[in-house]
Amino acid sequence: MAVDGTDENSLEQGIHTKDAGRPRRSQSELKCGVRLTHFHRLLASLVGADWIFLMILGFVMAVISFVMDIFVTLFTDAHRWIYDLSDSHVFLQYFAWVTYSLILMCFAAGFANIVSPQAVGSGIPEMKTTLRGVVLQEYLTFRTLVSKVISLTCTLGSELPVGKEGPFVHIGSMCAALLCKFMSLFSGIYKNEARNKEMLTVGCAVGIGCCFASPIGGVLFSMEVTSMFFVARNYWRGFLSATFGSLIFRLLPVWHHEEETLTALYATKYRLDFPFDLQELPAFAAMGIVCGFGGAFFVYLYGKITLFVKKQKATNSFLMKNCFLYSALVSVLISTLTFPPGFGQFMAGKLTQRDSLISFFDNRTWSNHGIIADFDNDDHLAAWKHPQANVFIILTIFVIMKFWMSALSITLPIPCGSFVPIFVIGAAFGRLVGEGMATLFPEGINTDGHIYPIVPGAYAVVGAAALTAGVTHTMSTGVIMMELTGQIGHILPILISVILANMVSQSLQPSIYDTVIRIKKLPYLPLLRWGHREKHNIHVEDFMERDVRYITLKSTYRDVYRILRSGDLKTLPLVKSAESMLLLGSVERTQLQALLKQRAQELQEGLTPSTTTSYRVHFQTSTEESSSASDHPASPKPLKPALKKAAVDEEEITSNVTRTDVYAREPPIDFC
Amino acid sequence: MAVDGTDENSLEQGIHTKDAGRPRRSQSELKCGVRLTHFHRLLASLVGADWIFLMILGFVMAVISFVMDIFVTLFTDAHRWIYDLSDSHVFLQYFAWVTYSLILMCFAAGFANIVSPQAVGSGIPEMKTTLRGVVLQEYLTFRTLVSKVISLTCTLGSELPVGKEGPFVHIGSMCAALLCKFMSLFSGIYKNEARNKEMLTVGCAVGIGCCFASPIGGVLFSMEVTSMFFVARNYWRGFLSATFGSLIFRLLPVWHHEEETLTALYATKYRLDFPFDLQELPAFAAMGIVCGFGGAFFVYLYGKITLFVKKQKATNSFLMKNCFLYSALVSVLISTLTFPPGFGQFMAGKLTQRDSLISFFDNRTWSNHGIIADFDNDDHLAAWKHPQANVFIILTIFVIMKFWMSALSITLPIPCGSFVPIFVIGAAFGRLVGEGMATLFPEGINTDGHIYPIVPGAYAVVGAAALTAGVTHTMSTGVIMMELTGQIGHILPILISVILANMVSQSLQPSIYDTVIRIKKLPYLPLLRWGHREKHNIHVEDFMERDVRYITLKSTYRDVYRILRSGDLKTLPLVKSAESMLLLGSVERTQLQALLKQRAQELQEGLTPSTTTSYRVHFQTSTEESSSASDHPASPKPLKPALKKAAVDEEEITSNVTRTDVYAREPPIDFC
Repeated sequence: MAVDGTDENSLEQGIHTKDAGRPRRSQSELKCGVRLTHFHRLLASLVGADWIFLMILGFVMAVISFVMDIFVTLFTDAHRWIYDLSDSHVFLQYFAWVTYSLILMCFAAGFANIVSPQAVGSGIPEMKTTLRGVVLQEYLTFRTLVSKVISLTCTLGSELPVGKEGPFVHIGSMCAALLCKFMSLFSGIYKNEARNKEMLTVGCAVGIGCCFASPIGGVLFSMEVTSMFFVARNYWRGFLSATFGSLIFRLLPVWHHEEETLTALYATKYRLDFPFDLQELPAFAAMGIVCGFGGAFFVYLYGKITLFVKKQKATNSFLMKNCFLYSALVSVLISTLTFPPGFGQFMAGKLTQRDSLISFFDNRTWSNHGIIADFDNDDHLAAWKHPQANVFIILTIFVIMKFWMSALSITLPIPCGSFVPIFVIGAAFGRLVGEGMATLFPEGINTDGHIYPIVPGAYAVVGAAALTAGVTHTMSTGVIMMELTGQIGHILPILISVILANMVSQSLQPSIYDTVIRIKKLPYLPLLRWGHREKHNIHVEDFMERDVRYITLKSTYRDVYRILRSGDLKTLPLVKSAESMLLLGSVERTQLQALLKQRAQELQEGLTPSTTTSYRVHFQTSTEESSSASDHPASPKPLKPALKKAAVDEEEITSNVTRTDVYAREPPIDFC
Repeated sequence: MAVDGTDENSLEQGIHTKDAGRPRRSQSELKCGVRLTHFHRLLASLVGADWIFLMILGFVMAVISFVMDIFVTLFTDAHRWIYDLSDSHVFLQYFAWVTYSLILMCFAAGFANIVSPQAVGSGIPEMKTTLRGVVLQEYLTFRTLVSKVISLTCTLGSELPVGKEGPFVHIGSMCAALLCKFMSLFSGIYKNEARNKEMLTVGCAVGIGCCFASPIGGVLFSMEVTSMFFVARNYWRGFLSATFGSLIFRLLPVWHHEEETLTALYATKYRLDFPFDLQELPAFAAMGIVCGFGGAFFVYLYGKITLFVKKQKATNSFLMKNCFLYSALVSVLISTLTFPPGFGQFMAGKLTQRDSLISFFDNRTWSNHGIIADFDNDDHLAAWKHPQANVFIILTIFVIMKFWMSALSITLPIPCGSFVPIFVIGAAFGRLVGEGMATLFPEGINTDGHIYPIVPGAYAVVGAAALTAGVTHTMSTGVIMMELTGQIGHILPILISVILANMVSQSLQPSIYDTVIRIKKLPYLPLLRWGHREKHNIHVEDFMERDVRYITLKSTYRDVYRILRSGDLKTLPLVKSAESMLLLGSVERTQLQALLKQRAQELQEGLTPSTTTSYRVHFQTSTEESSSASDHPASPKPLKPALKKAAVDEEEITSNVTRTDVYAREPPIDFC
């Protein structure tokens, strides 16, 4: 931070010096120059202002999100159109249904893997790792951005049960990083690495905010998922950027004459005066617990599938070696099962994820026979009506099928998020419970005279929030759900079920993001959560390496040689003396090897004097404090570049050490 | 943290050892003992579990809040009853109206100042300071809790325009601290100071959560106001505790048969399908900007009044010396102005703050003449109807009068918060704008065929959120507003106006809390916010003290004497040597003085040997690394307790140093 701050200072000073050094010119010329400089400085300060950056970021993300939505709708509409066109023969129809998805999927997989393999997956695990200090190569480039946006659009268009929010977190961060790079052309403040990293967190918030039009939920999600310590100023930045992004994201459809005014993305219209009965609370709480188990099972299933696929890849199965073939297989399998005239009729295969969500959040009670007659008038609800099966059977089949399909889909080598499919499953489960409650208590539970029938749509909202909370281990899903549906009347049931789902699933499994991090073996220190309290009492001394190999200022070449042979440490600590054990810095193995080789050559050539002192290696430390080190005469071959200043960034070092050690000791994950 | 962790370990080990050391007993006795130990350990682990603590905290706070609300309602109802009883003569009525408030006020002021003066004021500034590391004496005791709860109830009962949320943040923290102390009887984990401090943050969240039934807003507010760096696990704790607290707080009225089910505290019923028109957005934004100016002016006014009162106290004005008299004066002034048959008829003086808020959030349009006829049926709305003045005039008078009254009230030596009065003012201002808009566009703005009339109640919600944001410099007021009204349809207007209000007021004035901190001269490092970007480039070297006085391991008595005489530093740094300047620790002035005195005595008594080395002070350092210190022979009078280990908690030390220095250089506040 200091370095970059100075950078900026010197940059500005550079401008001043330039001004001062100019030859004297005419009055008007001088005025013009002053004005230009003034303008230049004003521009730099304006461009350097946070709010300009944040609003541009919000705007860009909103436009990306909106345009992507348009294309996805185009793709799915085209799918329906081709499907309806080929209704002359059921086989032709099946062929059209499956091939369309297949082509889009293969294009998405191919594009992502060829242009930038970093675009594959959700991106949230990688962002978590990046924000905790480990920079992953190529994860924030323009190439990855293009790859992710285009192949995500195709994936969503192919109607695989995946979502766009995970990739959007990644896209938001990429946009933030690229915008920082672009803005650094105008203002020196963007050369500040620490500030740019903070902007990545903002990018995450904007990503969620523009995906669901949920600024508050976005900020909370970015806090929960990406940070262990949250800097208060990021909160401001996140709010500003996510609010502006959401505003633009919701304004665009209005300008596009798709909607009348700014509303929630999945606006609901539940009863406001009596949102739910007190006696319904236990049902909501039980749903939270079940969703906690469901979420943990989803993560478990996902881990199992991923490890199975990895194993298949490792053995020389031809099918698995090719990203196209695996994607194609899964795409054919899923679109076969959702084929509307086939098995799809039992699981509303005709509906897109968006349509399913809208129908789950519907205000009416499906199991009420008077209402089901109206279903034919509504395209979305008609899909849930079946002459042979009632609503409960269809919903149960839907939940079970979508559960494994979603877990399978997010293992594919494509950009995909797990949030939305889990929303859909959770909402379906909630609708199932709600319909059950409505059947059990057709007049509502309240017995005080007023009849308040049960609202199954509210159960869908609670179920969606709880299951997502169980999978992602976040509380913000509840907030996102409220912003998504535009209703806050069920705040307490939502929060209670979200908390219970979190408590259950956190004590059973790591979150889906931590699971990906473990499977991908990314460097990362997991959070301690519910039921891991005893781990707070593990101290560094409990697992630290006590037999440390080191070199001292007085080490001889023989010592160095011996230590290098005794292990394969990449970096060796350099201490002042064996007695004081004061860490002066670290020396890399390669440099010590080079030194030994040189020494061996010297000895062979007989160039060295035969005094005893020369057998000692001389380290020239660059820190000011090590006065005793400077007592030695300057060595003829100093190892200066090899010495990294100790205690420059103690926190960094400590955390690195801890991290490495924890990983060294962590038991291997076992999903089997 | 480590120390306390070890504490707990050794405590548990203590139990083990005890078991092992027992004499052999019969099988059943042994079994019983094992069971008891097992039970004991289970209890300790259960009591030590976060969620138990958090739920108890939430429950306690909810009960306090609910019981306080009941008493406040009782007090205000009694006020109305006495007022109505004495309607035979207007002077008698005036006397009853004023005296009632006066007595309650004086009792509140007296009780707070006699039992515990720390209960005075909002408590948020003090919590800010406490949570940033400066422990304020007596601020978290049971005595203060009792004093604050009782005198706050009386203050609110006296209908002064003050709120309960600020004191509730303080009460929440006190409850958390006391509960920690209580729980430490059962589980060693509560001896961990760092953990207990984190629990204070949770207490803040629960305080807000139980005050407004807004768990999410509570967590966000506690984050914004109290922390610069927010630990992710506090977020969880806050959510759990605040949700449970809100649940109980809203359940109690249902059990008490006051309400039918769990709803928002000020539940509203605005239109869901078309919450607001796009063209209304500029009006909302303009309101945000005006509220930003208003908020800054409120803070300015508050600062002015406080400094004026302080000045009066400093000069020997008799009136000001006595806390009763000042409170009594203000109480009489305010209740005279709100006296309903007097000036109060132009500012709805009859209504309590709660009633005013309910009427502002009302769904109907007051300026619509068809509706105003219905006002008589509604007790709340009738207050806004006046034969001589229309709604606009009454609202304007209300806003202006309440503005200075609130600013005046919160300077009183009583427990009081500024949140709710500002809510009321903001809501009144919003209602004013909304009524104006409704008069300008009686058919609504939309021209697409549908007629959607303007909802002035929504403007009241936005105005309340924006003005509070302007005064407190927080974003969470928007969230609190949504939870308070149970509607999220206006999320974008609320967030936009809150952001704009923040931007405007932050560039004009510090927040009300920072102002209090400055006036009370509490140690505190202010946040850098909008428009202070250039301050990010100030480095420690720009303001640090370069001429540091220190003692070294080789200092003689003469050196120590000279250094002590040269300044009045309370604590002196001890470095290894003048060349290395390695900080070993610090020595307190008093201890050095005692040492010198002792030496002087020794010299007088002629007890010391006359060798030269004895003129050197010997410091015995307790850190392991300082090997050179141990080279000296152990001094006969070591200063061991005076040496505090350096580098034990580096962050703490650094932050302390920075804080002190910043304050040393900070320009004095000038409000004049």
